[in-house]
Amino acid sequence: MEVFELSYNQFQTVYNVLSLALASMLVTFVFLLVVQGRVLARYRQALVVSAMVCLIAAYHYYRIFDSFRHSFVAIDAGELAASSDAMRYALVNGEGFNEGYRYVDWLLTVPLLLFEAIAVLALPRQTRKSLLMKLIPASALMIILGYPGELATDTMAKGIWGALSTIPFLYILYILFVELTRASKTQPEQVGKDVNGLRWLLLATWGVYPISYMFPMFGFEGADAFVARQVGYSIADILAKCLFGLLIYKIAREKSAVDSPEFRADEMEEAPSSK
Amino acid sequence: MEVFELSYNQFQTVYNVLSLALASMLVTFVFLLVVQGRVLARYRQALVVSAMVCLIAAYHYYRIFDSFRHSFVAIDAGELAASSDAMRYALVNGEGFNEGYRYVDWLLTVPLLLFEAIAVLALPRQTRKSLLMKLIPASALMIILGYPGELATDTMAKGIWGALSTIPFLYILYILFVELTRASKTQPEQVGKDVNGLRWLLLATWGVYPISYMFPMFGFEGADAFVARQVGYSIADILAKCLFGLLIYKIAREKSAVDSPEFRADEMEEAPSSK
Repeated sequence: MEVFELSYNQFQTVYNVLSLALASMLVTFVFLLVVQGRVLARYRQALVVSAMVCLIAAYHYYRIFDSFRHSFVAIDAGELAASSDAMRYALVNGEGFNEGYRYVDWLLTVPLLLFEAIAVLALPRQTRKSLLMKLIPASALMIILGYPGELATDTMAKGIWGALSTIPFLYILYILFVELTRASKTQPEQVGKDVNGLRWLLLATWGVYPISYMFPMFGFEGADAFVARQVGYSIADILAKCLFGLLIYKIAREKSAVDSPEFRADEMEEAPSSK
Repeated sequence: MEVFELSYNQFQTVYNVLSLALASMLVTFVFLLVVQGRVLARYRQALVVSAMVCLIAAYHYYRIFDSFRHSFVAIDAGELAASSDAMRYALVNGEGFNEGYRYVDWLLTVPLLLFEAIAVLALPRQTRKSLLMKLIPASALMIILGYPGELATDTMAKGIWGALSTIPFLYILYILFVELTRASKTQPEQVGKDVNGLRWLLLATWGVYPISYMFPMFGFEGADAFVARQVGYSIADILAKCLFGLLIYKIAREKSAVDSPEFRADEMEEAPSSK
Protein backbone atom coordinates (compact mmCIF):
# COMPACT_ATOMS: atom_id res chain seq x y z
CA MET A 1 0.00 0.00 0.00
CA GLU A 2 1.41 3.35 -1.05
CA VAL A 3 1.24 6.19 1.39
CA PHE A 4 0.58 9.67 0.13
CA GLU A 5 -1.18 12.90 0.85
CA LEU A 6 -4.07 14.45 -1.05
CA SER A 7 -4.49 18.17 -1.46
CA TYR A 8 -7.80 19.74 -0.47
CA ASN A 9 -8.97 19.79 -4.09
CA GLN A 10 -7.89 16.23 -4.73
CA PHE A 11 -9.74 15.05 -1.65
CA GLN A 12 -12.90 16.95 -2.64
CA THR A 13 -12.72 15.61 -6.20
CA VAL A 14 -12.63 11.98 -5.12
CA TYR A 15 -15.29 12.61 -2.46
CA ASN A 16 -17.67 14.19 -4.94
CA VAL A 17 -17.15 11.71 -7.74
CA LEU A 18 -17.77 8.77 -5.40
CA SER A 19 -20.93 10.48 -4.17
CA LEU A 20 -22.03 11.12 -7.75
CA ALA A 21 -21.57 7.44 -8.59
CA LEU A 22 -23.54 6.36 -5.51
CA ALA A 23 -26.41 8.72 -6.34
CA SER A 24 -26.48 7.61 -9.99
CA MET A 25 -26.65 3.94 -9.07
CA LEU A 26 -29.41 4.45 -6.50
CA VAL A 27 -31.59 6.54 -8.80
CA THR A 28 -31.16 4.25 -11.80
CA PHE A 29 -32.01 1.27 -9.57
CA VAL A 30 -35.32 2.87 -8.55
CA PHE A 31 -36.06 4.10 -12.07
CA LEU A 32 -35.59 0.69 -13.66
CA LEU A 33 -37.92 -0.94 -11.14
CA VAL A 34 -40.58 1.72 -11.49
CA VAL A 35 -40.77 1.53 -15.30
CA GLN A 36 -41.22 -2.25 -15.39
CA GLY A 37 -44.89 -1.88 -16.26
CA ARG A 38 -43.97 0.12 -19.36
CA VAL A 39 -42.53 -2.80 -21.30
CA LEU A 40 -44.11 -6.14 -22.23
CA ALA A 41 -43.77 -8.89 -19.62
CA ARG A 42 -41.21 -10.80 -21.64
CA TYR A 43 -38.72 -7.91 -21.44
CA ARG A 44 -39.02 -7.35 -17.70
CA GLN A 45 -36.39 -9.87 -16.74
CA ALA A 46 -33.74 -7.74 -18.47
CA LEU A 47 -34.99 -4.64 -16.64
CA VAL A 48 -35.04 -6.31 -13.24
CA VAL A 49 -31.50 -7.58 -13.72
CA SER A 50 -30.37 -4.08 -14.79
CA ALA A 51 -31.90 -2.72 -11.60
CA MET A 52 -30.08 -5.34 -9.53
CA VAL A 53 -26.77 -4.39 -11.15
CA CYS A 54 -27.34 -0.79 -10.04
CA LEU A 55 -28.29 -1.91 -6.53
CA ILE A 56 -25.15 -4.04 -6.18
CA ALA A 57 -23.06 -1.11 -7.41
CA ALA A 58 -24.86 1.29 -5.03
CA TYR A 59 -23.98 -0.99 -2.11
CA HIS A 60 -20.34 -1.10 -3.12
CA TYR A 61 -20.10 2.64 -3.75
CA TYR A 62 -21.52 3.17 -0.30
CA ARG A 63 -18.73 0.98 1.09
CA ILE A 64 -16.04 2.62 -1.06
CA PHE A 65 -17.23 6.09 -0.07
CA ASP A 66 -17.19 5.07 3.60
CA SER A 67 -13.78 3.45 3.30
CA PHE A 68 -12.43 6.60 1.61
CA ARG A 69 -13.77 8.90 4.31
CA HIS A 70 -12.22 6.84 7.08
CA SER A 71 -8.88 6.24 5.38
CA PHE A 72 -7.91 9.87 4.96
CA VAL A 73 -7.84 12.46 7.69
CA ALA A 74 -7.11 16.13 7.59
CA ILE A 75 -3.68 17.14 8.78
CA ASP A 76 -2.27 20.60 9.52
CA ALA A 77 -5.42 21.32 11.45
CA GLY A 78 -3.84 24.45 12.84
CA GLU A 79 -3.74 26.14 9.47
CA LEU A 80 -7.07 24.67 8.52
CA ALA A 81 -8.95 27.69 9.71
CA ALA A 82 -6.72 30.04 7.78
CA SER A 83 -7.13 28.70 4.28
CA SER A 84 -8.40 25.62 2.55
CA ASP A 85 -5.30 25.60 0.33
CA ALA A 86 -3.19 24.69 3.30
CA MET A 87 -5.37 21.72 4.11
CA ARG A 88 -4.08 18.31 3.21
CA TYR A 89 -5.29 14.77 3.81
CA ALA A 90 -3.12 11.84 4.71
CA LEU A 91 -3.86 8.15 4.40
CA VAL A 92 -3.73 7.18 8.03
CA ASN A 93 -6.30 4.58 8.86
CA GLY A 94 -4.98 1.14 9.64
CA GLU A 95 -7.43 -0.63 7.40
CA GLY A 96 -6.41 1.48 4.42
CA PHE A 97 -8.58 2.30 1.47
CA ASN A 98 -10.18 -0.92 0.28
CA GLU A 99 -9.98 -1.32 -3.50
CA GLY A 100 -11.16 -4.92 -3.18
CA TYR A 101 -14.76 -3.75 -3.17
CA ARG A 102 -14.44 -2.84 -6.84
CA TYR A 103 -13.43 -6.38 -7.77
CA VAL A 104 -16.23 -7.92 -5.71
CA ASP A 105 -18.61 -5.52 -7.44
CA TRP A 106 -17.37 -6.38 -10.93
CA LEU A 107 -17.43 -10.11 -10.18
CA LEU A 108 -21.16 -9.80 -9.49
CA THR A 109 -22.18 -7.12 -11.99
CA VAL A 110 -20.20 -7.83 -15.16
CA PRO A 111 -21.81 -11.26 -15.76
CA LEU A 112 -25.21 -9.71 -15.01
CA LEU A 113 -24.60 -6.88 -17.51
CA LEU A 114 -23.93 -9.43 -20.22
CA PHE A 115 -26.99 -11.39 -19.11
CA GLU A 116 -29.28 -8.37 -19.46
CA ALA A 117 -27.84 -7.48 -22.87
CA ILE A 118 -28.76 -10.96 -24.14
CA ALA A 119 -32.07 -11.21 -22.23
CA VAL A 120 -33.51 -8.04 -23.77
CA LEU A 121 -33.13 -9.44 -27.29
CA ALA A 122 -35.64 -12.25 -26.60
CA LEU A 123 -33.68 -14.63 -28.80
CA PRO A 124 -34.75 -18.26 -29.23
CA ARG A 125 -34.06 -20.23 -26.06
CA GLN A 126 -31.25 -22.32 -27.54
CA THR A 127 -29.34 -19.36 -29.00
CA ARG A 128 -29.69 -17.38 -25.78
CA LYS A 129 -28.45 -20.25 -23.67
CA SER A 130 -25.46 -20.87 -25.92
CA LEU A 131 -24.40 -17.19 -25.87
CA LEU A 132 -24.74 -16.93 -22.10
CA MET A 133 -22.80 -20.14 -21.49
CA LYS A 134 -19.86 -18.52 -23.30
CA LEU A 135 -20.13 -14.96 -22.03
CA ILE A 136 -20.73 -15.49 -18.31
CA PRO A 137 -17.84 -17.84 -17.49
CA ALA A 138 -15.49 -15.74 -19.65
CA SER A 139 -16.43 -12.55 -17.81
CA ALA A 140 -15.96 -14.13 -14.37
CA LEU A 141 -12.57 -15.45 -15.46
CA MET A 142 -11.59 -11.99 -16.72
CA ILE A 143 -12.24 -10.40 -13.31
CA ILE A 144 -10.72 -13.21 -11.26
CA LEU A 145 -7.49 -13.13 -13.28
CA GLY A 146 -7.25 -9.36 -12.94
CA TYR A 147 -7.36 -9.30 -9.14
CA PRO A 148 -3.93 -10.84 -8.32
CA GLY A 149 -2.45 -8.32 -10.77
CA GLU A 150 -4.12 -5.44 -8.97
CA LEU A 151 -2.62 -6.62 -5.66
CA ALA A 152 0.82 -7.34 -7.13
CA THR A 153 3.44 -4.70 -6.64
CA ASP A 154 6.05 -5.71 -9.23
CA THR A 155 5.56 -4.87 -12.87
CA MET A 156 6.34 -8.38 -14.09
CA ALA A 157 3.50 -10.04 -12.12
CA LYS A 158 1.13 -7.22 -13.01
CA GLY A 159 1.93 -7.72 -16.69
CA ILE A 160 1.40 -11.47 -16.62
CA TRP A 161 -1.95 -11.37 -14.78
CA GLY A 162 -3.05 -8.48 -17.01
CA ALA A 163 -2.21 -10.46 -20.14
CA LEU A 164 -4.02 -13.56 -18.84
CA SER A 165 -7.08 -11.47 -18.03
CA THR A 166 -7.05 -10.02 -21.56
CA ILE A 167 -7.63 -13.44 -23.14
CA PRO A 168 -11.23 -13.86 -21.86
CA PHE A 169 -11.82 -10.15 -22.60
CA LEU A 170 -10.95 -10.65 -26.28
CA TYR A 171 -13.09 -13.77 -26.35
CA ILE A 172 -16.07 -11.74 -25.01
CA LEU A 173 -15.53 -9.14 -27.74
CA TYR A 174 -15.47 -11.89 -30.34
CA ILE A 175 -18.79 -13.29 -29.07
CA LEU A 176 -20.40 -9.84 -28.90
CA PHE A 177 -19.20 -8.56 -32.26
CA VAL A 178 -19.28 -11.76 -34.34
CA GLU A 179 -21.61 -14.40 -32.86
CA LEU A 180 -24.17 -11.92 -31.54
CA THR A 181 -24.40 -10.21 -34.91
CA ARG A 182 -25.14 -13.53 -36.54
CA ALA A 183 -27.76 -14.37 -33.89
CA SER A 184 -29.58 -11.05 -34.00
CA LYS A 185 -30.14 -10.73 -37.75
CA THR A 186 -33.89 -11.06 -37.24
CA GLN A 187 -34.11 -8.03 -34.91
CA PRO A 188 -35.95 -4.89 -36.04
CA GLU A 189 -33.68 -2.26 -37.61
CA GLN A 190 -33.77 0.23 -34.72
CA VAL A 191 -33.01 -2.56 -32.25
CA GLY A 192 -30.02 -3.57 -34.36
CA LYS A 193 -28.66 -0.03 -34.06
CA ASP A 194 -29.22 0.02 -30.31
CA VAL A 195 -27.49 -3.32 -29.84
CA ASN A 196 -24.57 -1.86 -31.73
CA GLY A 197 -24.59 1.14 -29.37
CA LEU A 198 -24.64 -1.25 -26.41
CA ARG A 199 -21.59 -3.10 -27.66
CA TRP A 200 -19.56 0.05 -28.28
CA LEU A 201 -20.56 1.41 -24.89
CA LEU A 202 -19.22 -1.77 -23.28
CA LEU A 203 -16.00 -1.62 -25.28
CA ALA A 204 -15.43 2.09 -24.52
CA THR A 205 -16.18 1.88 -20.80
CA TRP A 206 -14.42 -1.43 -20.19
CA GLY A 207 -11.37 0.12 -21.84
CA VAL A 208 -11.02 2.49 -18.87
CA TYR A 209 -10.35 -0.36 -16.43
CA PRO A 210 -7.19 -1.80 -18.05
CA ILE A 211 -5.81 1.73 -18.55
CA SER A 212 -6.18 2.48 -14.82
CA TYR A 213 -4.79 -0.97 -14.07
CA MET A 214 -1.63 -0.17 -16.01
CA PHE A 215 -0.93 3.22 -14.34
CA PRO A 216 1.66 1.79 -11.91
CA MET A 217 3.38 -0.07 -14.78
CA PHE A 218 4.14 3.29 -16.40
CA GLY A 219 5.40 4.67 -13.11
CA PHE A 220 2.29 6.82 -12.69
CA GLU A 221 1.77 6.53 -8.94
CA GLY A 222 1.01 8.51 -5.83
CA ALA A 223 -1.76 11.01 -5.25
CA ASP A 224 -2.33 12.06 -8.88
CA ALA A 225 -2.64 8.47 -10.06
CA PHE A 226 -4.95 7.66 -7.15
CA VAL A 227 -7.29 10.54 -8.01
CA ALA A 228 -7.22 9.76 -11.75
CA ARG A 229 -8.01 6.11 -11.03
CA GLN A 230 -10.94 6.86 -8.73
CA VAL A 231 -12.43 9.37 -11.18
CA GLY A 232 -11.86 7.04 -14.16
CA TYR A 233 -13.37 3.98 -12.47
CA SER A 234 -16.37 5.94 -11.20
CA ILE A 235 -17.24 7.56 -14.53
CA ALA A 236 -16.75 4.23 -16.33
CA ASP A 237 -19.04 2.54 -13.81
CA ILE A 238 -21.74 5.18 -14.24
CA LEU A 239 -21.67 4.73 -18.02
CA ALA A 240 -21.36 0.94 -17.97
CA LYS A 241 -24.17 0.45 -15.46
CA CYS A 242 -26.59 3.39 -15.49
CA LEU A 243 -26.37 4.45 -19.14
CA PHE A 244 -26.24 0.77 -20.13
CA GLY A 245 -29.40 0.09 -18.10
CA LEU A 246 -31.21 3.00 -19.74
CA LEU A 247 -30.24 1.68 -23.18
CA ILE A 248 -31.64 -1.73 -22.20
CA TYR A 249 -34.89 0.02 -21.26
CA LYS A 250 -34.97 1.83 -24.62
CA ILE A 251 -34.50 -1.46 -26.49
CA ALA A 252 -37.20 -3.14 -24.39
CA ARG A 253 -39.62 -0.31 -25.24
CA GLU A 254 -38.87 -0.52 -28.95
CA LYS A 255 -39.24 -4.27 -29.04
CA SER A 256 -42.49 -4.08 -27.06
CA ALA A 257 -43.88 -1.63 -29.62
CA VAL A 258 -42.90 -3.92 -32.50
CA ASP A 259 -44.36 -7.03 -30.81
CA SER A 260 -47.71 -5.56 -29.82
CA PRO A 261 -49.84 -2.96 -31.62
CA GLU A 262 -51.93 -2.42 -28.46
CA PHE A 263 -48.81 -1.61 -26.49
CA ARG A 264 -47.80 0.80 -29.23
CA ALA A 265 -51.17 2.55 -29.17
CA ASP A 266 -51.27 2.80 -25.37
CA GLU A 267 -47.70 3.61 -24.59
CA MET A 268 -46.13 5.67 -27.32
CA GLU A 269 -45.83 9.25 -26.23
CA GLU A 270 -47.64 11.09 -29.01
CA ALA A 271 -51.14 12.21 -28.15
CA PRO A 272 -53.74 11.29 -30.77
CA SER A 273 -54.02 14.20 -33.22
CA SER A 274 -57.25 16.01 -32.42
CA LYS A 275 -58.87 16.56 -35.77
CA MET B 1 -11.58 -18.05 22.50
CA GLU B 2 -8.24 -18.42 20.77
CA VAL B 3 -6.16 -15.31 20.24
CA PHE B 4 -4.33 -14.91 16.98
CA GLU B 5 -3.17 -12.37 14.42
CA LEU B 6 -4.24 -11.98 10.84
CA SER B 7 -1.95 -10.79 8.08
CA TYR B 8 -3.03 -7.89 5.87
CA ASN B 9 -4.17 -10.24 3.09
CA GLN B 10 -6.02 -12.53 5.51
CA PHE B 11 -7.84 -9.56 6.99
CA GLN B 12 -8.78 -8.24 3.54
CA THR B 13 -9.97 -11.68 2.40
CA VAL B 14 -12.36 -12.11 5.33
CA TYR B 15 -13.49 -8.47 5.05
CA ASN B 16 -14.31 -8.81 1.36
CA VAL B 17 -15.97 -12.21 1.55
CA LEU B 18 -18.26 -11.03 4.38
CA SER B 19 -19.11 -7.95 2.33
CA LEU B 20 -19.78 -10.13 -0.72
CA ALA B 21 -22.17 -12.30 1.30
CA LEU B 22 -23.98 -9.23 2.65
CA ALA B 23 -24.37 -7.74 -0.84
CA SER B 24 -25.57 -11.06 -2.29
CA MET B 25 -28.22 -11.49 0.40
CA LEU B 26 -29.50 -7.92 0.05
CA VAL B 27 -29.76 -8.04 -3.72
CA THR B 28 -31.37 -11.48 -3.82
CA PHE B 29 -33.88 -10.30 -1.20
CA VAL B 30 -34.90 -7.35 -3.38
CA PHE B 31 -34.87 -9.44 -6.55
CA LEU B 32 -37.16 -12.15 -5.14
CA LEU B 33 -39.67 -9.54 -3.99
CA VAL B 34 -39.60 -7.65 -7.28
CA VAL B 35 -40.22 -10.69 -9.48
CA GLN B 36 -43.27 -11.89 -7.56
CA GLY B 37 -45.59 -10.74 -10.32
CA ARG B 38 -43.73 -12.95 -12.75
CA VAL B 39 -45.06 -16.24 -11.34
CA LEU B 40 -48.64 -17.41 -10.78
CA ALA B 41 -50.17 -16.42 -7.44
CA ARG B 42 -50.01 -19.96 -6.06
CA TYR B 43 -46.19 -19.95 -6.21
CA ARG B 44 -45.67 -16.57 -4.56
CA GLN B 45 -45.60 -17.94 -1.01
CA ALA B 46 -42.39 -19.84 -1.83
CA LEU B 47 -40.86 -16.69 -3.34
CA VAL B 48 -41.76 -14.50 -0.38
CA VAL B 49 -40.27 -17.01 2.05
CA SER B 50 -37.09 -17.20 -0.05
CA ALA B 51 -36.88 -13.42 0.11
CA MET B 52 -37.31 -13.48 3.90
CA VAL B 53 -34.50 -16.02 4.21
CA CYS B 54 -32.20 -13.63 2.35
CA LEU B 55 -33.32 -10.68 4.50
CA ILE B 56 -32.63 -12.61 7.71
CA ALA B 57 -29.22 -13.59 6.38
CA ALA B 58 -28.48 -10.01 5.25
CA TYR B 59 -29.21 -8.80 8.77
CA HIS B 60 -26.89 -11.38 10.30
CA TYR B 61 -24.13 -10.74 7.80
CA TYR B 62 -24.35 -7.06 8.62
CA ARG B 63 -23.84 -7.99 12.28
CA ILE B 64 -21.02 -10.44 11.51
CA PHE B 65 -19.28 -7.88 9.28
CA ASP B 66 -19.56 -5.26 11.99
CA SER B 67 -18.38 -7.65 14.69
CA PHE B 68 -15.38 -8.59 12.56
CA ARG B 69 -14.41 -4.97 11.91
CA HIS B 70 -14.50 -4.12 15.60
CA SER B 71 -12.81 -7.29 16.87
CA PHE B 72 -9.57 -6.88 14.95
CA VAL B 73 -7.40 -3.81 14.99
CA ALA B 74 -4.23 -2.97 13.15
CA ILE B 75 -1.05 -3.33 15.16
CA ASP B 76 2.48 -2.26 14.34
CA ALA B 77 1.09 1.07 13.25
CA GLY B 78 4.61 2.41 13.26
CA GLU B 79 5.66 0.15 10.40
CA LEU B 80 2.36 0.71 8.64
CA ALA B 81 3.85 3.51 6.64
CA ALA B 82 6.66 1.32 5.39
CA SER B 83 4.77 -1.54 3.79
CA SER B 84 1.44 -3.30 3.88
CA ASP B 85 3.26 -6.62 4.31
CA ALA B 86 4.27 -5.51 7.77
CA MET B 87 0.69 -4.79 8.70
CA ARG B 88 -1.04 -7.26 10.95
CA TYR B 89 -4.34 -7.39 12.78
CA ALA B 90 -4.84 -8.69 16.27
CA LEU B 91 -8.03 -9.88 17.90
CA VAL B 92 -8.24 -7.34 20.68
CA ASN B 93 -11.79 -6.42 21.33
CA GLY B 94 -13.22 -7.65 24.60
CA GLU B 95 -16.42 -8.88 23.04
CA GLY B 96 -14.51 -10.96 20.53
CA PHE B 97 -15.78 -12.05 17.18
CA ASN B 98 -19.31 -13.35 17.61
CA GLU B 99 -19.85 -16.66 15.84
CA GLY B 100 -23.21 -17.12 17.59
CA TYR B 101 -24.88 -14.95 14.92
CA ARG B 102 -24.40 -17.77 12.44
CA TYR B 103 -26.31 -20.25 14.61
CA VAL B 104 -29.17 -17.82 15.21
CA ASP B 105 -29.26 -17.25 11.46
CA TRP B 106 -29.34 -20.96 10.66
CA LEU B 107 -31.97 -21.67 13.30
CA LEU B 108 -34.27 -19.24 11.50
CA THR B 109 -33.32 -19.81 7.87
CA VAL B 110 -32.77 -23.55 7.56
CA PRO B 111 -36.39 -24.52 8.41
CA LEU B 112 -37.58 -21.76 6.05
CA LEU B 113 -35.37 -23.05 3.23
CA LEU B 114 -36.98 -26.48 3.58
CA PHE B 115 -40.39 -24.84 3.73
CA GLU B 116 -39.85 -22.97 0.45
CA ALA B 117 -38.55 -26.10 -1.29
CA ILE B 118 -41.78 -27.92 -0.43
CA ALA B 119 -44.05 -24.90 -0.99
CA VAL B 120 -42.91 -24.34 -4.57
CA LEU B 121 -43.98 -27.85 -5.58
CA ALA B 122 -47.65 -27.09 -4.86
CA LEU B 123 -48.21 -30.65 -3.64
CA PRO B 124 -51.57 -31.82 -2.30
CA ARG B 125 -52.22 -30.28 1.12
CA GLN B 126 -51.93 -33.53 3.06
CA THR B 127 -48.60 -34.54 1.49
CA ARG B 128 -47.14 -31.08 1.98
CA LYS B 129 -48.16 -30.98 5.63
CA SER B 130 -46.75 -34.41 6.33
CA LEU B 131 -43.38 -33.57 4.72
CA LEU B 132 -43.08 -30.26 6.57
CA MET B 133 -43.98 -31.81 9.94
CA LYS B 134 -40.96 -34.07 9.53
CA LEU B 135 -38.47 -31.67 7.95
CA ILE B 136 -38.90 -28.56 10.08
CA PRO B 137 -38.51 -30.08 13.59
CA ALA B 138 -35.59 -32.19 12.33
CA SER B 139 -33.78 -29.15 10.93
CA ALA B 140 -34.25 -27.13 14.13
CA LEU B 141 -32.93 -30.07 16.15
CA MET B 142 -29.91 -30.35 13.85
CA ILE B 143 -28.89 -26.73 14.48
CA ILE B 144 -29.60 -26.77 18.20
CA LEU B 145 -27.51 -29.91 18.75
CA GLY B 146 -24.62 -28.46 16.74
CA TYR B 147 -24.25 -25.31 18.82
CA PRO B 148 -22.89 -26.80 22.09
CA GLY B 149 -20.31 -28.62 19.95
CA GLU B 150 -19.22 -25.37 18.32
CA LEU B 151 -18.67 -23.84 21.76
CA ALA B 152 -16.99 -26.92 23.23
CA THR B 153 -13.21 -26.86 23.37
CA ASP B 154 -12.44 -30.53 23.95
CA THR B 155 -12.56 -32.96 21.07
CA MET B 156 -14.67 -35.49 22.94
CA ALA B 157 -17.59 -33.11 23.54
CA LYS B 158 -17.31 -31.73 20.01
CA GLY B 159 -17.49 -35.26 18.64
CA ILE B 160 -20.54 -36.23 20.68
CA TRP B 161 -22.58 -33.13 19.85
CA GLY B 162 -21.52 -33.41 16.21
CA ALA B 163 -22.68 -37.02 16.06
CA LEU B 164 -26.01 -36.16 17.72
CA SER B 165 -26.54 -33.34 15.23
CA THR B 166 -25.85 -35.71 12.34
CA ILE B 167 -28.85 -37.91 13.19
CA PRO B 168 -31.53 -35.33 12.23
CA PHE B 169 -29.35 -34.35 9.23
CA LEU B 170 -29.46 -37.92 7.89
CA TYR B 171 -33.19 -38.06 8.57
CA ILE B 172 -33.66 -34.87 6.48
CA LEU B 173 -31.69 -36.43 3.64
CA TYR B 174 -33.87 -39.53 3.83
CA ILE B 175 -37.03 -37.41 3.59
CA LEU B 176 -35.66 -35.31 0.72
CA PHE B 177 -34.23 -38.15 -1.34
CA VAL B 178 -36.78 -40.91 -0.66
CA GLU B 179 -40.12 -39.54 0.51
CA LEU B 180 -39.99 -36.39 -1.61
CA THR B 181 -39.20 -38.42 -4.74
CA ARG B 182 -42.26 -40.54 -4.09
CA ALA B 183 -44.42 -37.47 -3.50
CA SER B 184 -43.28 -35.52 -6.56
CA LYS B 185 -43.73 -38.19 -9.23
CA THR B 186 -46.51 -36.16 -10.81
CA GLN B 187 -44.31 -33.08 -11.43
CA PRO B 188 -43.41 -32.04 -15.00
CA GLU B 189 -40.10 -33.43 -16.23
CA GLN B 190 -38.11 -30.16 -16.07
CA VAL B 191 -39.39 -29.52 -12.55
CA GLY B 192 -38.27 -32.99 -11.53
CA LYS B 193 -34.76 -32.16 -12.72
CA ASP B 194 -34.76 -28.85 -10.87
CA VAL B 195 -35.94 -30.46 -7.63
CA ASN B 196 -33.06 -32.86 -7.99
CA GLY B 197 -30.70 -29.90 -8.45
CA LEU B 198 -32.18 -28.30 -5.33
CA ARG B 199 -31.54 -31.42 -3.25
CA TRP B 200 -27.96 -31.77 -4.40
CA LEU B 201 -27.35 -28.08 -3.81
CA LEU B 202 -28.54 -28.54 -0.23
CA LEU B 203 -26.38 -31.61 0.27
CA ALA B 204 -23.26 -29.98 -1.22
CA THR B 205 -23.58 -26.67 0.64
CA TRP B 206 -24.66 -28.17 3.94
CA GLY B 207 -21.62 -30.41 3.71
CA VAL B 208 -19.41 -27.33 4.16
CA TYR B 209 -20.72 -26.69 7.67
CA PRO B 210 -19.72 -30.00 9.32
CA ILE B 211 -16.32 -29.82 7.60
CA SER B 212 -15.64 -26.37 9.11
CA TYR B 213 -17.06 -27.62 12.39
CA MET B 214 -14.51 -30.41 12.48
CA PHE B 215 -11.45 -28.20 11.76
CA PRO B 216 -10.42 -27.97 15.45
CA MET B 217 -10.84 -31.73 15.86
CA PHE B 218 -8.09 -32.24 13.30
CA GLY B 219 -5.89 -29.68 15.02
CA PHE B 220 -6.48 -27.13 12.25
CA GLU B 221 -6.67 -23.93 14.32
CA GLY B 222 -5.46 -20.35 14.49
CA ALA B 223 -5.54 -17.70 11.79
CA ASP B 224 -5.58 -20.00 8.73
CA ALA B 225 -8.44 -22.08 10.11
CA PHE B 226 -10.33 -18.90 11.00
CA VAL B 227 -10.00 -17.50 7.47
CA ALA B 228 -10.88 -20.84 5.85
CA ARG B 229 -13.95 -21.15 8.06
CA GLN B 230 -15.21 -17.63 7.34
CA VAL B 231 -14.71 -18.05 3.59
CA GLY B 232 -16.26 -21.53 3.60
CA TYR B 233 -19.32 -20.52 5.64
CA SER B 234 -19.89 -17.39 3.54
CA ILE B 235 -19.66 -19.12 0.16
CA ALA B 236 -21.86 -21.97 1.44
CA ASP B 237 -24.43 -19.43 2.68
CA ILE B 238 -24.46 -17.59 -0.65
CA LEU B 239 -25.09 -20.83 -2.51
CA ALA B 240 -27.57 -22.28 0.01
CA LYS B 241 -29.65 -19.08 0.21
CA CYS B 242 -29.20 -16.94 -2.91
CA LEU B 243 -28.63 -19.62 -5.51
CA PHE B 244 -31.28 -21.77 -3.78
CA GLY B 245 -33.74 -18.86 -3.95
CA LEU B 246 -33.03 -18.33 -7.63
CA LEU B 247 -33.64 -22.04 -8.28
CA ILE B 248 -36.96 -21.76 -6.43
CA TYR B 249 -37.83 -18.84 -8.74
CA LYS B 250 -36.88 -20.90 -11.80
CA ILE B 251 -39.10 -23.79 -10.65
CA ALA B 252 -41.97 -21.40 -9.95
CA ARG B 253 -41.64 -19.94 -13.46
CA GLU B 254 -41.61 -23.36 -15.08
CA LYS B 255 -44.59 -24.56 -13.11
CA SER B 256 -46.48 -21.36 -13.91
CA ALA B 257 -45.83 -21.90 -17.61
CA VAL B 258 -47.07 -25.49 -17.40
CA ASP B 259 -50.18 -24.50 -15.40
CA SER B 260 -51.27 -21.61 -17.59
CA PRO B 261 -50.92 -21.19 -21.37
CA GLU B 262 -51.68 -17.46 -21.07
CA PHE B 263 -48.82 -17.02 -18.63
CA ARG B 264 -46.60 -18.88 -21.04
CA ALA B 265 -47.55 -16.68 -23.99
CA ASP B 266 -47.10 -13.42 -22.08
CA GLU B 267 -44.08 -14.17 -20.02
CA MET B 268 -41.73 -16.45 -21.85
CA GLU B 269 -38.75 -14.62 -23.19
CA GLU B 270 -39.00 -15.43 -26.87
CA ALA B 271 -40.56 -12.77 -29.03
CA PRO B 272 -43.21 -14.02 -31.47
CA SER B 273 -41.45 -14.92 -34.69
CA SER B 274 -42.06 -12.04 -37.05
CA LYS B 275 -43.05 -13.70 -40.29
